[in-house]
Amino acid sequence: MGVKLGILGLGTVGTGTVQLLQDLDGRHRLLREIEIHRVGVRSLELSRGVELAKNVLITDLDAIVNDPAIDIVVELIGGLEPARSLILKAIENGKHVVTANKAAIARFGDEIFTAANQAGVYVMLEAAVGGGIPVIQPLKQSLSVNRIHTVTGIVNGTTNYILTRMQTEGSNFNDVLADAQKLGYAEADPTADVDGLDAADKIAILASLAFGCRINLQDVYCEGIRQVSKTDIVYADKLGFVIKLLAIAKRITPSTPPSLSIRVHPTLLPKEHPLASINGVYNAILVEGEPLKQVMFFGPGAGAGATASAVCSDILNLVAALKTSTATPNPLLSCAHQDYCQIVPMAELITRFYVRFLTKDHPGVIGKLGTCFGKYGVSLESIVQTGFEGELAEIVVVTHDVPEGNFRQALAEIQALEAIESIPSLLRVL
Amino acid sequence: MGVKLGILGLGTVGTGTVQLLQDLDGRHRLLREIEIHRVGVRSLELSRGVELAKNVLITDLDAIVNDPAIDIVVELIGGLEPARSLILKAIENGKHVVTANKAAIARFGDEIFTAANQAGVYVMLEAAVGGGIPVIQPLKQSLSVNRIHTVTGIVNGTTNYILTRMQTEGSNFNDVLADAQKLGYAEADPTADVDGLDAADKIAILASLAFGCRINLQDVYCEGIRQVSKTDIVYADKLGFVIKLLAIAKRITPSTPPSLSIRVHPTLLPKEHPLASINGVYNAILVEGEPLKQVMFFGPGAGAGATASAVCSDILNLVAALKTSTATPNPLLSCAHQDYCQIVPMAELITRFYVRFLTKDHPGVIGKLGTCFGKYGVSLESIVQTGFEGELAEIVVVTHDVPEGNFRQALAEIQALEAIESIPSLLRVL
Repeated sequence: MGVKLGILGLGTVGTGTVQLLQDLDGRHRLLREIEIHRVGVRSLELSRGVELAKNVLITDLDAIVNDPAIDIVVELIGGLEPARSLILKAIENGKHVVTANKAAIARFGDEIFTAANQAGVYVMLEAAVGGGIPVIQPLKQSLSVNRIHTVTGIVNGTTNYILTRMQTEGSNFNDVLADAQKLGYAEADPTADVDGLDAADKIAILASLAFGCRINLQDVYCEGIRQVSKTDIVYADKLGFVIKLLAIAKRITPSTPPSLSIRVHPTLLPKEHPLASINGVYNAILVEGEPLKQVMFFGPGAGAGATASAVCSDILNLVAALKTSTATPNPLLSCAHQDYCQIVPMAELITRFYVRFLTKDHPGVIGKLGTCFGKYGVSLESIVQTGFEGELAEIVVVTHDVPEGNFRQALAEIQALEAIESIPSLLRVL
Repeated sequence: MGVKLGILGLGTVGTGTVQLLQDLDGRHRLLREIEIHRVGVRSLELSRGVELAKNVLITDLDAIVNDPAIDIVVELIGGLEPARSLILKAIENGKHVVTANKAAIARFGDEIFTAANQAGVYVMLEAAVGGGIPVIQPLKQSLSVNRIHTVTGIVNGTTNYILTRMQTEGSNFNDVLADAQKLGYAEADPTADVDGLDAADKIAILASLAFGCRINLQDVYCEGIRQVSKTDIVYADKLGFVIKLLAIAKRITPSTPPSLSIRVHPTLLPKEHPLASINGVYNAILVEGEPLKQVMFFGPGAGAGATASAVCSDILNLVAALKTSTATPNPLLSCAHQDYCQIVPMAELITRFYVRFLTKDHPGVIGKLGTCFGKYGVSLESIVQTGFEGELAEIVVVTHDVPEGNFRQALAEIQALEAIESIPSLLRVL
């Protein structure tokens, strides 16, 4: 009769998913054809937010991916292993897979999609990026008629929450992080969020779909927000910018597959930019291309309900695919690209920079800065000298677009100047 | 071999669509299977922005919808007739249809979708709402796992452009309209935009998809922006609001199909609301539901490129559907709902109001206002008495939520008060 699900994991997202599927009034009626056949958990003893029949809840996850009755495996345990092995086993057994696991997809996507294509099954991952925001499906099924130029996202809610509070309260990173941990917006070990690793996983996935190629996760440049100071947030504000942790994938060459620049770093963003007003734990993804120009998707980037919505939308699409006879797999649901994108080294990136110098109050120090910058073709958009820290003057500079390599050379020379005490901040500007 | 298109109309959107389909590098490779078989135009004499073989361009539109070789008819002529008849004929002949025609779909959707379901073909309409923003597909295919509560949109670029300029420049409606007409942002006859009719068509379509029911266009309450004054924009700003033309569809009862409130009117929107920062010709659609909470789609609401992107994404989806054997139609691509939603009368709408009174400067006038409001259960959130026009005082009131019927009764009584000179403005507040 119905389509049988095997759900792996009954944490926050798993519980949200089961709750949604057990309460179907007012939702798409195709969901009525779904039967939650098995739910795999670590322990049967824990109390749950959902009621499931005794034979549904089991602890043997392998039994689920090997159960011939199951049509779709929904992987919600997260982490790398056993998630990867269970997904691969499910695929080998001819089951479609829905996963919210950005870490596993970003690392093992090649292996997983190759296996899925061979087995003629789909691996769906709407929940892996942007929580409840439908962005994976539009990239695969709608926006791909465009020649995508750039995908720019605020894809990590924790860091956006921290930066928003630093901005509005004038607080320090460490204080806000500690409070965010208390409030449950940041994890006890905040590394994956705060150092940009989670955002790197997500932009690798988005880039892969937007540009139709595979991405080596190690090639994604990644810089977190630990070094963003409240001083820089204030300067940025005065200069007309906000600071956001952006994940950016940009087409550099028109070839197929294209060369890409792909990176995660705190970025000064002009206040009138559509992403500048995305605050708190929200996520947003801006897609630019031709002839569309731009489109932005905004919503909650995490949370049980939002993620369950994305998981269930993938399940819905699989149920629809299973209802129609699919001798050939639907090319808009599968991920067929096999070539790797070339990733352009950061030295070749063309971008603007924001730098803050602490200088000894020598006469002519601005002149010396200008000379060094000029030598490497770095031209300045604005320069502000304000504030004194004891004997030191503070100089803030925003450059015009320049290859990062040139800029770094100029900076190395400036660092060696007698008048320069230190360079406490260096950020890129969109 | 390929999938054969018959395109009706080669205006701005038609030309953009052909340009996209003739320049495929870097786009989804499935588009390569498309052949532009015929393009129907009014006159062969006009010069075009695209080159087409002599036998492709024809003036007989009927011949296109009757051509057995054609798989997909792309209707881009707009207007009601002959668009409706051509769409119906194409369906009768077993062709799938892509249309950007919100006016025809909002009026004849019942007839068109009934015919399409009988014939087993799809009618795709991504371009009908929100230009290049993918919103129809997410509503049909992703968000429908949610219990949708509300769809709120800025779906008309012309009025949003006018209101944005009134806001930023402090200008009058008539002056900005005249300038917008000169600049090509408003049509010579601006009625459909300025009086909210275009937005009404669009919210009827969005509501129908979001709530899985049919909508009688005549039931959509519709009020345009002609009466929005710069005075009200200034008051709204002081009170923490911007004024936007919103199209709103809201579920009132949990039944299937639900009762809806559905309406288009200028609305005071709190500045921190996600739609408040959508300026200029941009469109945005906010979808709220359970368990998703909210998600917003933002982008260019019109223009050749954006609309062509939406049209081609529909074509892409049809090509994918044609490639996979579809004995049964894909329930996520078709529009199966047949029941009409009940539309709740405006008198039953629960909303906040903004009212501006001109009063003779009598003592106790605020007391009298308060008494009248109190009598009908209208409680006040804020009240401002500022500015004098000659002998008259100006009083601005924002109410708490109240049934519109009660509010209207109170207002009728207030209007009869000796101290009230006139009520120049009455707007709803979100």
